[in-house]
Formats: sequence, C-alpha cells, structure tokens
Amino acid sequence: MLTFNRHLFTTKLPTFCRSLKTWSRRMTTVGQDINERVSAQGNVVRTLKSQGAPKNEIDKEVEKLLALKNLKVGESGSGKKKDNSFTLKTPKGTKDWYDKDVVLREHIFKTVTDIFKRHGGVTLDTPVFELKEILAGKYGEDSKLIYDLKDQGGELCSLRYDLTVPFARWLAMNPKVTNIKRYHIAKVYRRDQPAMTKGRMREFYQCDFDIAGSFDPMIPDSEALKVLVESLDALEVGKYTIKINHRQILDGIFAVCGVPSDKVRTISSAVDKLDKLPWEEVKREMVVEKGLSEEVADKISEYVLLKGDRSLLEKLRSDSLLSSSPSASAAFKDMDLLFDYLESFGILDKFSFDMSLARGLDYYTGIIYEAVTEASAPKVKSSTEKKSSEDPEADRSNDDSIGVGSIAAGGRYDNLVGMFAAKKNSQVPCVGISLGLERIFSILRSRIPDEEIRANEVDVFAMAFGGGKEWTGFLKERMQICNDLWKNGIKAEFLYKAKPKPRQQFDAADRYGVPFAIILGQDEIDQNAVRIKRMGLKEKSDEGQLVSRADMVKVLQDLLASSN
Amino acid sequence: MLTFNRHLFTTKLPTFCRSLKTWSRRMTTVGQDINERVSAQGNVVRTLKSQGAPKNEIDKEVEKLLALKNLKVGESGSGKKKDNSFTLKTPKGTKDWYDKDVVLREHIFKTVTDIFKRHGGVTLDTPVFELKEILAGKYGEDSKLIYDLKDQGGELCSLRYDLTVPFARWLAMNPKVTNIKRYHIAKVYRRDQPAMTKGRMREFYQCDFDIAGSFDPMIPDSEALKVLVESLDALEVGKYTIKINHRQILDGIFAVCGVPSDKVRTISSAVDKLDKLPWEEVKREMVVEKGLSEEVADKISEYVLLKGDRSLLEKLRSDSLLSSSPSASAAFKDMDLLFDYLESFGILDKFSFDMSLARGLDYYTGIIYEAVTEASAPKVKSSTEKKSSEDPEADRSNDDSIGVGSIAAGGRYDNLVGMFAAKKNSQVPCVGISLGLERIFSILRSRIPDEEIRANEVDVFAMAFGGGKEWTGFLKERMQICNDLWKNGIKAEFLYKAKPKPRQQFDAADRYGVPFAIILGQDEIDQNAVRIKRMGLKEKSDEGQLVSRADMVKVLQDLLASSN
Repeated sequence: MLTFNRHLFTTKLPTFCRSLKTWSRRMTTVGQDINERVSAQGNVVRTLKSQGAPKNEIDKEVEKLLALKNLKVGESGSGKKKDNSFTLKTPKGTKDWYDKDVVLREHIFKTVTDIFKRHGGVTLDTPVFELKEILAGKYGEDSKLIYDLKDQGGELCSLRYDLTVPFARWLAMNPKVTNIKRYHIAKVYRRDQPAMTKGRMREFYQCDFDIAGSFDPMIPDSEALKVLVESLDALEVGKYTIKINHRQILDGIFAVCGVPSDKVRTISSAVDKLDKLPWEEVKREMVVEKGLSEEVADKISEYVLLKGDRSLLEKLRSDSLLSSSPSASAAFKDMDLLFDYLESFGILDKFSFDMSLARGLDYYTGIIYEAVTEASAPKVKSSTEKKSSEDPEADRSNDDSIGVGSIAAGGRYDNLVGMFAAKKNSQVPCVGISLGLERIFSILRSRIPDEEIRANEVDVFAMAFGGGKEWTGFLKERMQICNDLWKNGIKAEFLYKAKPKPRQQFDAADRYGVPFAIILGQDEIDQNAVRIKRMGLKEKSDEGQLVSRADMVKVLQDLLASSN
Repeated sequence: MLTFNRHLFTTKLPTFCRSLKTWSRRMTTVGQDINERVSAQGNVVRTLKSQGAPKNEIDKEVEKLLALKNLKVGESGSGKKKDNSFTLKTPKGTKDWYDKDVVLREHIFKTVTDIFKRHGGVTLDTPVFELKEILAGKYGEDSKLIYDLKDQGGELCSLRYDLTVPFARWLAMNPKVTNIKRYHIAKVYRRDQPAMTKGRMREFYQCDFDIAGSFDPMIPDSEALKVLVESLDALEVGKYTIKINHRQILDGIFAVCGVPSDKVRTISSAVDKLDKLPWEEVKREMVVEKGLSEEVADKISEYVLLKGDRSLLEKLRSDSLLSSSPSASAAFKDMDLLFDYLESFGILDKFSFDMSLARGLDYYTGIIYEAVTEASAPKVKSSTEKKSSEDPEADRSNDDSIGVGSIAAGGRYDNLVGMFAAKKNSQVPCVGISLGLERIFSILRSRIPDEEIRANEVDVFAMAFGGGKEWTGFLKERMQICNDLWKNGIKAEFLYKAKPKPRQQFDAADRYGVPFAIILGQDEIDQNAVRIKRMGLKEKSDEGQLVSRADMVKVLQDLLASSN
C-alpha cells in the first residue's frame, strides 16, 4: 500500500510549523502549565466544532492543540526541549519486531512449535511476572539481573528471568500433574548490559521444551535431544555440534583429582571456559585466582581436555582412577544407555562427548548439553581477548578468540521442583532444552536474502482500471470481489481509494510482492468478468486471462495451489 | 501418560518426612542461617557422591538438603512457617493457562490471526514495558492502574496498558511507515480490582487489528468492521450486535442541546451508561451530580435514546436542529458512506445505529463501536444494581441489571500518533478493533464440552505387547517406529518404559484421546510388521489390522487423512 493524499499534510504543514513555533515561544515566555493549556485548547476545538465554525478555522485550532500536546510530550522528558526523540524509543535492551524480521521470527516459532507438538508437547503459559520470592535464590549471583516491579501496594513481583523456574513453580502447584511434556515460547527479562548487534537483549525469547516425570533412565533425555536435533535441522542453522557431558562425571573427575568439595563449583566454571581459552589460562585461573594446587590442576587436565565420540566412554571406563568414583561409574551407565537411544533415534553422529562442558547453572543434576555452530566457538584459543579488551581501539570483529556462543542448551534438573515443594509428592525430575531465538534468528537473517521474505501473505490485489469524470472507480465491485475471495479463504486487498490510478495499485501490490492481480475495467464489467494477471512478470505487456466472474474464485484457487 | 515408579517416592517418603521434621526442629532451635546450611549440606552430598558412599547414605543427605531448601522457600515468605503454599501461587489477577483452556485459547488466536492476515495484516511485536513517559497522559484517571517497574537505576518504565499506545509510539518512531494494517495479540496489564470468574484480570490478552494511514473516507473503517464481523462469526460466539455511533454526532447533539463545552465529556460518559441504567437515573446523574440544567437533559433524551437501523440516519438528518450542527452533518456524510460500504461487504444487518453509545476513551475522533452478545447487556434496566450492592448477601448472579459487557470494541483515533510527534509527517490517522480474549473465551469454554477438546495432538501411540523375563520390551523398535513417524510429520509418542504393561500404554494413549495405536508383539516382529488399531472403539476385542513395516507410514497417513 502506498500513501495518497500526502497533500492533505503538505497543505497544512506551514501553518502547523508556524503555530508550533508560536506556541513554543509562548510556552517558554509565559511558561503556563501545559496540561491546563491542552485541556483549555481542547475545549476551544470542541466548542468550535459544535458551533459549526468553518473547517479551516477548526483545523487551525486542532493544530494548536496538537502543537501543545507535542510540547507536553517533549516536556515529560525532563526538559530536553529541542529534541524529544528520546521519548520516541523503546527501553534499553528492548526492540520492536516488525516487517520481514517478524515474518522470519514467526517462521522459527512455527517450525519449533510443530516439532514440539509432534512429540506430544502441550504448551503452558505463565504470567510475565512472578511473586518475587519464587525467583529468590534460584539464579545465584545473577539474581541481581532480575527486574522487580515497583511496590505499588500489595504483593512484590519480579519479571520472569527464564521459563524453567515458572515451570517448576507450576509443577509444584499442580501435584496431580506427575508427568508432562510442556513447551513454552515466550520473552524473559534480564537487566544485563545489552549488546543488541550480538543478540544480547534485556527482553528476549526462549523456546523451551521440557519433559517432567519419573521414567526409566535416559529415555526422556534421549527424546529431548531428538527434539533438539529435529529443531536445529528443520531451522537449517547450518553445521552444528551438540556438546554433551554428565554432571556426575565431572563430580567424579573433581573428586578423584582431589578438588576440595567447597571448590567444586568454582573450578567447574573455570573448566567451562576451555572453549574460549587455552588450558594454560584456565589452569592459571584455577591455581592463581582460585587457589587450587598446581598438582591437582594438572591432574584435572588429563580428563577435562578429552573429547570425542562414544568410544571416549570406554576410554574413561578403562581409567581405573576415575572409575573408582561411584558417581562417575553411575554416570557411565547413563551415558551408555543414552548413546544406545541416540543411535536408535539415528542422531548419535550429532554429538561430541566433551569433558570440558560444565554449564553455569547450579541446578543441573545429570546430563548437560550445548549446541554450537561453526560460528559459536572461537577459531583460535588465545588470550587475545584480554589483550584487545585492554586496547579499546582494536577491532574485535576479527578477533578469532571471540565466538557467537551456543544457540541452544539444556540438561537434567531433578531437584528444582522440590525447592518449591513442602508437599512430598511434588518432587518431579525434569530434563529440557532451550533454544535461543535471537541467536538463531541472527544466523538465518544474515543468510536469507531480503527478497525471499514477504512481509505480508496477500495472494490477490483487486484493481480498478479506467478514468475520466464519469468513471466510478468500481469501488463497490472491488469490495464485493474481495468479499468473495475472503469468504473462500483467499488473502486479498484493494486500494482504499474511490478512483485509484493503475500505477498506485501496482505499486501497492508490488510493495508486498502480491503474486496475482484482479483487474477490473469497463470491458470486464460489461462482460461480467474479471482479468486475472500474474504479477512480477517481466513482460508488462502481459494482459492476463479473462475469467467469468462466476469462475473467478475457482480459477484463483487453482492458480494459487499450483504456484505454491 | 501415567506415572510409573511411584514407589521411587513412596519408599523415600517416610525418611523424607522424618528428616524434614528433624531439620525444621533444629532450624527453629539452633536458628542458624539457612543459606549457609544449604550450601554446607550441598557440599556434604557432593563429597559423599564423589567418595562413592552407598546409595542410601547419599539419598539420606540429599533429602536433608531438599528439606533445608524447602525451609528456605518457606522462610522467604515472611515467616508463615507451617504453610508455605502461599508462595506457590501466581500474582493477584494473573493465571497460568494450560491443558484444554490453552488449546481453546490457541484456537481463538489462530482463528483471528488467519482473518487478520487474510486482510493483509502484518504483525508488530512491541516490548512488554515502555518508557513511563510514553504512557503518561494517555489514559486519563485510569493512569493510576498502570504497573510501574521498580527504579533499579536507568530508565523509568511501565508495563503496557494496552496495545494501541505502543502502536502509536511505533508509528511516530517510524515516519516512513505512512500506512499499515497491523495486528497484535498480546497481554496488557492493569492494576485493577480483579474479578477472575468474570474474566476481569490484571494480566489479560487483547487481539488488535488497526489500519493506519490517510485514505479516502470510511473505506478503511468499513474493512476494520468487516474484519470484526468475520472474527466474531468464525469464533461462533453466538448471536451478537455491533452498536455503532459517531463522536461528531454526539458532539453535535450536546452542542445543539446546549451542553457547556467543559461538561461535554462528563455528560458523554453519563450517556454511555444507558445500556445499564434507565434514563431517569442517567438524567439524575446529569442534573444532580453533574449540574446540567433539567431542560438541557430532557433535550438530550430526545436524541440519545434513539437507536435503529440505517433509516435512523434519515430521521436525524430531517431534524432541523441537529442538522444545523456542521459537525453532526459532516458525520452524517460519513455514516452514509459507511453504511454503503457495509452493505457492499454484506454485513449491514449486524449493526445497530445507537445514539447512546459514547465509549469512555478520550482519543476517539470518528466512528465508535462495541460488539455485544445477548449476555452482554442487562435483561432489565433498573437500579437494582445499586440496591443489591447495598445488600452484600444478595446473590448477584441472577441480577438481570448486570451484564457481561462488550466482547469487542474500537473506533477511529486520528490524533493519537500526533501526541508523540514533533515531526510534522508523523500525524497518522488510525481506525481499529480490539477483541477481548478472556470474555470470548469464557463464552466458548462454557459451551464446548470438555471431551471435544484434546489437550495434545498426538496421532499415534506406539505400544509393545509381551512379557516374561526374556522379553525385551521392544524399546528400540518403538523408538525407530516413532522416528519414522516423526520424520513423516506424524505426531507420535511411546511410553518411557523399557518393559511397559499394555494397560499403562492404553491408559497413556486414552489420557489424551490418541486416535491410533501401533501394536508391536513378537508375532508382528517375526513378520516384520506392525498392528494398527483404532483407539476408543467399544469392542475391545478389535485386533486392528496387520500392516507390513514398510507400509506403516503410508497406511497411517491415509487413515489420518480420512479420519479428519
């Protein structure tokens, strides 16, 4: 759709600007309360209208009113009078989704939703905010990133930080639900330092699929991973690998290497950095920053640097020291089963058994995993990250030590529901996956050419041709044509103009790449027919095909079916 | 899906409860810091695991840990030690959507979204919170109902109160977008006194479709109303009427009757109550409460009590007094055009031209409308509302003076975008509709029998039959069958159990009304075949049909196609 009647504005603009200037001057000199003036001016306009003053009189007063209201908006922004554009923004770290971006985003949502449902997933929709105490003590030091609602009396609430804790809260609230496959696609909120271009937002989407319930070991885990693989394949994110590890293997490693139990978590997070940093630096962190003995650190390195396929499991098993750890050997059984199941699902080749994967969150109790694309991991493991950050001038975009990060992740968390539950039967083991929409979006958006995305889905544009004083513009006929098309589920538009020009109508149809036009001229009317034209054809000469009004819908349905 | 392994819990419960008691006692007596204790106990567990203590030993410590964490949750709720269920709730005026409710809700969303797209609508997604100043001065006295975010440093923000103001803010931010059909289905937030059963929530959904841009008069208005009619028809909300009026006709009425311009809005809101109260009471409010002269009030009554079909327009035109008002006679032209267009769209019969419709919001500038069902309006107009509210014991549910209210509404607002815009070209006239999901949901939910709603969409449940020690349970085979089904887009599940009982599998399939079962026994395996059984048939004896493994997918696809 194009704009017409632009003159409607252009004629008014000079007056508008004048009055705006005049009023701003008055405002600053007289400096009277604006709200007062706005309502006063509002009454002036209403009175004039009701008394039937001439249109141009009323318009002038309306403009004054608008000018006042503009000043009011400007004013509400703590006095930066000259430029009120700062009021015209979304809050820091948030964005509007529209046009082709929102179309691609919807495509991603539909793709994963179809897969979630194919596996028996049902959706759960929780409020965007929770009681503050529900989120308390779930995110460790990240809790400082939680958005709180202002205390306006009543309960204290916070915006949800993820979809997992609300799911656990819901499970604890509904003890009758002893098992469920639930998916939830929604926004979560973190008061983090945003980096919009890198898809790091304060308001961002998570696409979660979780399986809750007590089942035979590793079967739900394997289906959760199957869902992850199907999703990444269907989204065509390109080549990816799913790193996988088991918390109890890590616990075993740290135990047999002699890491003091109070250091386990912090050493674990150091290990997690091995995808970004070389071992030497991680070791330095362990020994210098975290006071681990060098000997223990070296022992750890013999394990955490290992990665490979299923065969690595045998290697670990044959390690007498590690297999002396019951938690590790219990985990070996799990992994054996899991690999069997992943093989049955035909997805074993997607996985890399990676001892350096540790994951930040505390609440994981079993397998953990992370999907990475080629862009995720840094090309070289070096300390250039630190160096370049010391030199703010350095261009980081080519710094191979910086990766995109994971596009999906998850794991098993068997104790989270229990944290909410005094009721005995509310302990529900869970395993789940979470896809990061913004990162997947950024990968796909950069790859898909703009012209391959249509911002709307309209199939047909109903156009009127003709001209001259006596020409009616066939508005009624266009409306009735669209009426018939809509009734038959065909997406159709027409130009909101009584007597449109052909050019305007073609441009409007082209703007959204509408594939077909219905052309209505006096000839067609006389023959009680319409002309159906395929748009976007080089030969503008193409006249399209003449179809009787009665056959119009049928012909279009066939054309649309065949063109898809 | 049913629950198995419940013993996994029952065996532990006694211990669990004991340790819970023990620890609660200690907590209150010793009263040591819980967080300290939790992390300490966490280390105990980790150490035991890594040292490979016997399973039951570890379990005991884990239970202590859980007990501690439960106390922690309980504690965070300001000391109601005995019952921490109050932490297990959603905030006041909010709810979780799940099971059949969410399925019906999704159906409503899909129905209206399809219609919005059919008319060329594109969606816009704005952040759930806006800069506080964006919402300031848009909602009159209702502004007190706006949720603010806590000031945690940085910008002051508020949760969106509707979808219209964010849309106007976006239009002002994007002056290049001179016209658009945008739809937005999302939650909005109002700190109102909730009445959940009546669908009055603090967090609730709006489904908005708006047409922005300068076009020939009343054409977009008529399509917005066409979209509204298509939506209500497709949703099958039952018999409904769309009351319609024009702000400038009301302005004209108030003017020619001599209402002082400073009283116009308040008198207008009094008129708006005529659907709930008899004229005598409305008049009383005008005269006694709002100081209007009785003579003027009586004059008003000659107009605002009028309602009818298109013919009413001629009646008003022929009224010399009213047609002396230019704002009214301008509106008459609008209504004439609109009625023509509604007729072209074949929806004129849905409308009631109703002079008593005034609508609350200040920002409407042209036509206004409101869709009501038979349940919306009170059966009798009386003052019993006041009476019964004086008697709190009275049962209101049968009070015919209380209606459900409108299920959709909207109107033309040409000046809202301008309120944000200092830029001259940012003045964009708009017309739109908004459907209230919760009210429509409550109408449909009460009408649709539970058994007609399926909570998940699974088509096939893969089952294993057999038994005995040497029986494998065909887990691998079930996984591969589901694999093939998923690959072909067939929604399928299997029981997460290595050796499931037939009963468990049938119950799991019945729970969600899965239409087909694939049955796998030794016979089928030997013949490299499967048995496809239609579920829910009375004759439990039905053996189903034997199909070769190779034909399985094809046969199921045909069965599913024919059963839809």
